[in-house]
Amino acid sequence: MTEHLADPEDEELDQDRIDAVLRAVGASDSAAVGALLDPLHAADIADLLEQIGGADRRALLALWSHEIDGDILSEISDAIREEVIEALPRAVLIDAVRDLESDDVVDILEDLDLPQQGMILDALESADRVAVEQAMAYPEYSAGRLMQRETVVAPNHWTVGETIDFLRKSDHLPDQFYHVILVDPRMQPVGYATLGRILSSGRDVLLRAIVEDSFRTIEATDAEADVAYIFNQYHLISCPVVDAGGRLVGVITIDDAMNVLDEEHGEDVLRLAGVGDEASVSDNAFETMKQRLPWLVVNLFTASLSAVVINLFEATISTIVVLAALMPIVASTGGIAGTQSLAVSVRALATRDLTEANARRVVLRELGAGVLNGLALAVILGLAGWGIFGDWKLGLVLGMAMIVNQIVAALGGVVVPLTLERFGLDPALASGTFVTTLTDVMGFFAFLGLATVLLI
Amino acid sequence: MTEHLADPEDEELDQDRIDAVLRAVGASDSAAVGALLDPLHAADIADLLEQIGGADRRALLALWSHEIDGDILSEISDAIREEVIEALPRAVLIDAVRDLESDDVVDILEDLDLPQQGMILDALESADRVAVEQAMAYPEYSAGRLMQRETVVAPNHWTVGETIDFLRKSDHLPDQFYHVILVDPRMQPVGYATLGRILSSGRDVLLRAIVEDSFRTIEATDAEADVAYIFNQYHLISCPVVDAGGRLVGVITIDDAMNVLDEEHGEDVLRLAGVGDEASVSDNAFETMKQRLPWLVVNLFTASLSAVVINLFEATISTIVVLAALMPIVASTGGIAGTQSLAVSVRALATRDLTEANARRVVLRELGAGVLNGLALAVILGLAGWGIFGDWKLGLVLGMAMIVNQIVAALGGVVVPLTLERFGLDPALASGTFVTTLTDVMGFFAFLGLATVLLI
Repeated sequence: MTEHLADPEDEELDQDRIDAVLRAVGASDSAAVGALLDPLHAADIADLLEQIGGADRRALLALWSHEIDGDILSEISDAIREEVIEALPRAVLIDAVRDLESDDVVDILEDLDLPQQGMILDALESADRVAVEQAMAYPEYSAGRLMQRETVVAPNHWTVGETIDFLRKSDHLPDQFYHVILVDPRMQPVGYATLGRILSSGRDVLLRAIVEDSFRTIEATDAEADVAYIFNQYHLISCPVVDAGGRLVGVITIDDAMNVLDEEHGEDVLRLAGVGDEASVSDNAFETMKQRLPWLVVNLFTASLSAVVINLFEATISTIVVLAALMPIVASTGGIAGTQSLAVSVRALATRDLTEANARRVVLRELGAGVLNGLALAVILGLAGWGIFGDWKLGLVLGMAMIVNQIVAALGGVVVPLTLERFGLDPALASGTFVTTLTDVMGFFAFLGLATVLLI
Repeated sequence: MTEHLADPEDEELDQDRIDAVLRAVGASDSAAVGALLDPLHAADIADLLEQIGGADRRALLALWSHEIDGDILSEISDAIREEVIEALPRAVLIDAVRDLESDDVVDILEDLDLPQQGMILDALESADRVAVEQAMAYPEYSAGRLMQRETVVAPNHWTVGETIDFLRKSDHLPDQFYHVILVDPRMQPVGYATLGRILSSGRDVLLRAIVEDSFRTIEATDAEADVAYIFNQYHLISCPVVDAGGRLVGVITIDDAMNVLDEEHGEDVLRLAGVGDEASVSDNAFETMKQRLPWLVVNLFTASLSAVVINLFEATISTIVVLAALMPIVASTGGIAGTQSLAVSVRALATRDLTEANARRVVLRELGAGVLNGLALAVILGLAGWGIFGDWKLGLVLGMAMIVNQIVAALGGVVVPLTLERFGLDPALASGTFVTTLTDVMGFFAFLGLATVLLI
């Protein structure tokens, strides 16, 4: 048996435990609920609250809300945070938010309505409250909102020994820090040394002699998406944040950047599919409808464009009814190709692999791929059409329409998001509907148009 | 002016610099190429290599390949790595890989063919080579492949002072480490202390007194996707990796976990859209076609199912030709709804917000949302159909078909990925085509079927 100095791993949140918690809640047995929840990590408790139904959640909070602490509160997703905060006794809420560092309090405040924001600000001690209010003065989704204000700094003339002595005397070090930031007398950061280098250097070594080779700072007004990109691109672990005058105002650590990266990705997946950003498994059917219906209504109108186009060819279809059966093949294969091109482009824009530098080349590549795919699919579909219906002209129409629509799809999938990006919009937003409308309309038009010319 | 101790931020990779590099490459001016590339971060140089065209890349490498170092090599994407390695003089390759820590060498090796793997293994010193070969013995995409083998450990009875003295005497500390891992005499990790706590504690404090409250280890055979989840869920910064006997074999740091998270997300976006995993902006049109054509061919067959269904109703369509124009509205709106439901489900599965615990509730929620969206869209479309064509029965058919297809779409979008996950498959894989085929077929069938019953 291994003797563990710390608690061993937190226990796991699995199906059995969730069932047991729900049974204990059903029996109003608050001691059993506590015994089941206490060994869990705060993040898992937050997940449990999110995953169970609304009625179970209310019942659980009625039994156990006095145990909600700051860690759990900051792990809870925005979707249910207001509900949980409303269920908390005032004293519990005060204790919970006083536990937290300023960046976590800011993260909680952002998504609350004003009365709840006021309640939480009132709960803070005045120094913390000022820090939080200053952070809230930065724009939403900025580095200023994301950073923690507690920093560990040293004058740039200090030695390792002076630094260690200073740290040993400090009462209020942040929970997490990975660098000592060297500042000049105006509090402008001039470099940083990793704790590893400090720990492994002699007491008389100057900090300036062991700073990292490369050094970057982030401006407090920079967008948090850019912060996530910089951390991922340059493998940063923490990064000083400066104000417009270059003075140190905070520090961002990689765990926050990772969280932003994760959220940005989720947003991309959902926006590409036309879902509102706030989607969460804890929403009920009505909330879910509200997030999705607007986009479906937009699609109802864009799909009507296809109907208008098809209706132009009413005479053609009434002459050769089988065209009605075949036309969705061309449109649908175009839709898939457009979605492929779009997904690759949106992903490449997110990772900044698609830039002005290579946009022209990527568009040409998509054009080439569209032509090649179009040719390959045209051969398959054309031969199949000829073979099944015994009419080589019908095969030709199918093949030609397929080539046209594959090219439209491949180009649309890259040009639409590039254009949105150029105008400062999210390339994932609305581009899915736009591209599939394009491929539907073009697919029907090319197929029925060619059929009218060649078959009638 | 701020005096910077370190290099100020690396210079930026922008359009102007890329243009200047390409001009210098065009003029075969290797001095100018060097002057433009040297101030860039390795990650940006790798991006540049990836973003320029194949011909430019070969010309650049011909001029500048002797400057490629290990950092650049490990930043280069898999898509062009083989090509770059082939362009490197042998001596440059040897220097580059000797620079790297074992985990970075493993990362490079994984995607190379055998002769190139051999070339790189030969370039390593024998101790490093053994370390790399041991790592390669772990399964692909496992923690064992991801971890660095260099760890910083201390016996669990040491004091802070003993630890600092040991670190000061150590020659071969890893570039990055954030904890000192406490081990028992059998090399089993029993806890860890952050460098921040060690630095701020007195020399005579025992390490065991300042270990972190919670402590987890990862098994070397754990999947890297699980590693990324654990880091993100529990806000880890580094985590010891153990073998089946619980002995310490390495450590994983958050930057590697963040990288995995990023790659997993990219995979989800691309797989949802039916694109092969290796998609990269540096691929040419032919590579791009190869990644996308298989899926398009699959869709060609699934779309033919719709054609077969429509063809069943040939008599109906030839009687009322406008049905052919209206039927895509029902199918397409169903496709969008299915994609919405699917994106939410795949995202929730990826973040583990959708689990066995709440699967039933989420499916019921989707059902509810499908009914509500179906009713709302049915009212709009039904009234429009009645108004435009002056036929209330046609409006009724449109509305009823819409309700049926919205329900199918909402359920399909959650049941399909849940089923794939249940069978151990990636829920993002193939589910897009499956769901849109379902909504197309059901959309055409419901609409034309109802029309046949009610209008003929």
